[in-house]
Amino acid sequence: MTVRSYERHNCPIAQALRVVGDQWTLLIVRDLLAGPQRFEALQRSLGISRNLLTRRLRQLVDDGLVLRERIDGTRRYQYRATQTCRDLRIAILALAEWGERWRPDPAGPRLKVHSRDDGAPVGVRLCRLDDGREVTPDEIAVERRTGTMASA
Amino acid sequence: MTVRSYERHNCPIAQALRVVGDQWTLLIVRDLLAGPQRFEALQRSLGISRNLLTRRLRQLVDDGLVLRERIDGTRRYQYRATQTCRDLRIAILALAEWGERWRPDPAGPRLKVHSRDDGAPVGVRLCRLDDGREVTPDEIAVERRTGTMASA
Repeated sequence: MTVRSYERHNCPIAQALRVVGDQWTLLIVRDLLAGPQRFEALQRSLGISRNLLTRRLRQLVDDGLVLRERIDGTRRYQYRATQTCRDLRIAILALAEWGERWRPDPAGPRLKVHSRDDGAPVGVRLCRLDDGREVTPDEIAVERRTGTMASA
Repeated sequence: MTVRSYERHNCPIAQALRVVGDQWTLLIVRDLLAGPQRFEALQRSLGISRNLLTRRLRQLVDDGLVLRERIDGTRRYQYRATQTCRDLRIAILALAEWGERWRPDPAGPRLKVHSRDDGAPVGVRLCRLDDGREVTPDEIAVERRTGTMASA
């Protein structure tokens, strides 16, 4: 059972998971969002085998989420998130909010998300695209091209 | 290599993926967000083996995301999303937006998310929690309890 089994699902969630649904992939993305990383730094951060990390990175490069690039003036390489990858920030932060709420650390929040400008706390919310007002998940309807998916 | 390897990562993203990072789990959640489902309906929708679906549902029940409940007046059971599960809506919609943007269907959008009230389109955005104003991912900083994760 591989991720390729999602292929036949013409659903944007399934298609996203085809790309980032493999074990460890979203944690690699998390680390690359902080900036380009060398292989050894990623391996240390994740604590996974070189083999597995190599496979995941190769897949991310093939899928257009990561660039493997020479570090100037050296023979070493680093991995850099592309815009496709950086666009996962909101999804990752939404998962982080869920993790903080439902799997909290007794010692307190592990992540702080705030405005660079003035430090105001920032969260992931649903917004109307016409006037920017926040709506709750219970105030929306989600239609799939064939029928309705959520959200009552 | 199982999802349990995420255990040692005291990171809310890793902790969320411990619960929903297994193959197919988020698609089961997607289906349950539309309302309670019988096993057979889930199996038809996903196209996976009974065995695998049984394992995933059992794990979701153990993790408090799903209730297995008798359908009134029958001997049949259905599966219902708990609040913990329903709180994944925003993360799932964020993944869906990414999928629509980066893995689009040439035939057009597969999901339409809109206000129940007046049909205005709705999206997942970053908002300041003080005044509700939208901010872009480049306007935020993400601090992990030990250091900084994103987002430049």
